[in-house]
Amino acid sequence: MAREIAEPGAGITLEELQLATRNHGMPLEALRYPITPVGLHYLLIHYDIPVVEPESWKLEIGGLVERPLELSLADIRARPAEELVVTMECAGNGRARLERRPISQPWLLEAVGTARWRGTPLRTLLEEAGLADEAVEILFTGLDRGVEGGIAQSFQRSLPREEALRDEVLLVYEMNGEPLPPQHGFPLRLVVPGWYGMTNVKWLARIEAVDRPFEGYQQSTAYRLRLEEDEEGRPLDRMLPRSLMIPPGQPEFLTRERNVPLEPCLLEGRAWSGTSPVAGVEVSADGGENWNEAELGQEADSAWAWRSWSYRWEPPAAGTYELCSRARDEAGNEQPLEPDWNLGGYVNNAVQRVRVVVS
Amino acid sequence: MAREIAEPGAGITLEELQLATRNHGMPLEALRYPITPVGLHYLLIHYDIPVVEPESWKLEIGGLVERPLELSLADIRARPAEELVVTMECAGNGRARLERRPISQPWLLEAVGTARWRGTPLRTLLEEAGLADEAVEILFTGLDRGVEGGIAQSFQRSLPREEALRDEVLLVYEMNGEPLPPQHGFPLRLVVPGWYGMTNVKWLARIEAVDRPFEGYQQSTAYRLRLEEDEEGRPLDRMLPRSLMIPPGQPEFLTRERNVPLEPCLLEGRAWSGTSPVAGVEVSADGGENWNEAELGQEADSAWAWRSWSYRWEPPAAGTYELCSRARDEAGNEQPLEPDWNLGGYVNNAVQRVRVVVS
Repeated sequence: MAREIAEPGAGITLEELQLATRNHGMPLEALRYPITPVGLHYLLIHYDIPVVEPESWKLEIGGLVERPLELSLADIRARPAEELVVTMECAGNGRARLERRPISQPWLLEAVGTARWRGTPLRTLLEEAGLADEAVEILFTGLDRGVEGGIAQSFQRSLPREEALRDEVLLVYEMNGEPLPPQHGFPLRLVVPGWYGMTNVKWLARIEAVDRPFEGYQQSTAYRLRLEEDEEGRPLDRMLPRSLMIPPGQPEFLTRERNVPLEPCLLEGRAWSGTSPVAGVEVSADGGENWNEAELGQEADSAWAWRSWSYRWEPPAAGTYELCSRARDEAGNEQPLEPDWNLGGYVNNAVQRVRVVVS
Repeated sequence: MAREIAEPGAGITLEELQLATRNHGMPLEALRYPITPVGLHYLLIHYDIPVVEPESWKLEIGGLVERPLELSLADIRARPAEELVVTMECAGNGRARLERRPISQPWLLEAVGTARWRGTPLRTLLEEAGLADEAVEILFTGLDRGVEGGIAQSFQRSLPREEALRDEVLLVYEMNGEPLPPQHGFPLRLVVPGWYGMTNVKWLARIEAVDRPFEGYQQSTAYRLRLEEDEEGRPLDRMLPRSLMIPPGQPEFLTRERNVPLEPCLLEGRAWSGTSPVAGVEVSADGGENWNEAELGQEADSAWAWRSWSYRWEPPAAGTYELCSRARDEAGNEQPLEPDWNLGGYVNNAVQRVRVVVS
C-alpha cells in the first residue's frame, strides 16, 4: 500500500487531524521539568488503548527458550526492580515540518518526553526462561490490534538478541512512581533506552525468542528509512541528537509567536541523543547564520535522559528574531539545518526555529 | 481583529496544527472509563502552562468584600473539602467539523473528560471575605499570560454572582485523588459544574468581586455566539447535550475506520448535558435516518457527570454503516443532525458519525 505524500503547501488532512486530536505532543514549556509529568509526555497509540483486566492478564515468554514462562503482574513485581530515567522520542517527530509531508501522525517538534520508569530487567527473565543459543531476535507483541498498510495485526516489534540483553532494557510497570497509565501500556511495557518510541512496545502480551529476523509490518514496512516504496531501506533504531528550547516570553494564542521584552533573556532547553552523550548545544539568534555555544547543565539523570542547557541571549535591539538551537553528540552526530527527506517522514531532527518579537 | 474562516474543503493550517499538537482530546475509547485517567482528559491551554512556586503562591480574594483574604495552598486545604465528579467539555468541541471552519483549536469530537475534583466551595470563602451586596459578578484571574485578539492579557473570566454562589462551585486542588497536574491548573483551579471548559479558570491567582459585568477579551469577544464580527452576540455558559460512542471493533491506523465482525455488537458510550439530566440516548445505524432508543446505565456519579448508555446492534449483513448516537436532556434540548454555524465555531453538538465496515 503506497504511502500518500502531501504536496508542498498542502494543508493537513482530516485523517491527519484525527490522529493529532487523539495523540499528543509535549507542550514545549514542559521542557522545564526534568521528569515530564504524566499527561504531558508525548503519546502515540497506533490503534486503540486495549481493555486489560489486570487480574487475568499474564505475560507469556516463549519460543526458543528452555522453560516457557507465564507470569502475572504480581510475579513480575516480585522480580528484582530497577528504576531508570529515560528520554523517549517518536521516530516521526518533525514529520509535519517536511515540505513534501508523508501522510501519517503530523508531528511538529513535540513528540518527546522523559519519565522515571520502574520495572524488571528483561535479561533476568530471559535467563530465567533459558534463552536458546539459536535465538537471534526477541519478538514483542502488544495487546493493541488494528489494520495498518492493509494488514490486520497486533502491534509487534523485535529486538536483536544483543540489544534485548542489554542491562538497561526493562519491562516496566511504573511511570513516575505510579502504576503505568492505560495510555502508556498498562500493565506492562518494554523500555529500550536510546531507541525511538516504536521500540517500546506497550500492553505487552507475549515475548518470543525467534531464530530469524522478524519481518512483520512494523519492522519491514514501517519504521524504515527509504526513498522509494520498493526499496528495502534501513531500519530505525537509536535516536539522533536533538535539542529543543523552551520558547521564551509569552505566546500569541493562534500563531504561537513569542513576545519578549528588550532585556537579557535566559534561553533554556534540553538535548538528547540515543547513540552517545550530548557533547554540546549551540544557539543562534539569526536563523542559523551565527552560532554560540550554550552552557550544559548538570549531568543528566541517567545516561539515557536528556540534558539541560542554557544560554544568556542579549537581544541587540527591538525587532523580529529566529532563535535556533542544535545539539551534537559524542559520536559526532549533529542536527542539520535542513531535513533529509524520506518516505516515512522519520528522524527529521533539523534544528528548531522559534520566531520571537522583541519590543 | 477579524477571525479567519477556512473555506469548505480547505486543509488544516500550520497554526491550527501547532495548537492540535500541544492541546489534546480524549481518545474516544477512553469513554469506557467513568472517571477519565489523568493524561486522557481533554486539555486546552490558551497560552503556556505558567511556572508556579507552590511555597510562595497565594490566592487573593478582593474587590467588593469586607475582609480581603490572601490564602496559601495550606490555608485552602484546611478549609472544608468536597469531592465532586464533573464532566467538562470545551466550548469549541466540534469546531473542525464545521464546513466553514473558524481558525482556532481544531477539535473534532474529543474535547471532553470527567474527573473527580476535590476542593473547597467558593461560596464559603466569599462568605468568609464578606461579599458586598453591590457585587454583581465574581472575576477570576489565572497566572497564564499571552496575547490574543491583539490584546496582551492574563486569562480572565467572570461568573454572575448567583452562579458563583452555587453550592457545587469549587476551588479545586486535587484531580482523581492526586494534586492537580501542572497542565490542569496547579495549584488551584475553578470548577463550575455544567458550564463549558473556559469557565473553569486554571492557575488561579486572584478572585475579585466587581460591581459591573466584566468586559475582558474572554468574555466580550471570545466565547460568544455570533454570526458577524460587529454583533454583540450571546455569551456561552452551560454545555448543550452530547452523546459519544466508543467506536466499536478495531481501527485502521490512518482513516480510523472501524472493522467489525458480522455478529451482535454492543455499542456503548456516554452522554451529558450542562442544563439538566440526560433524558435519553438514541442510536442510528444508517447515518441518522432511523433511530432506536439506547438503554441508559446506572445513575451518573453526580448530577454533573456523564451517564453511560448501551445498545445492542445486530448488523443485518456485511457492508458499510454509519453509526450515530444523539442525546436529549430533560430541559428538552436534543442534538441536531447538522450544526448551526457561528463565528467562533462554538457548541457544535451535531451527532457523532462513526464509519464501520462489517465483514
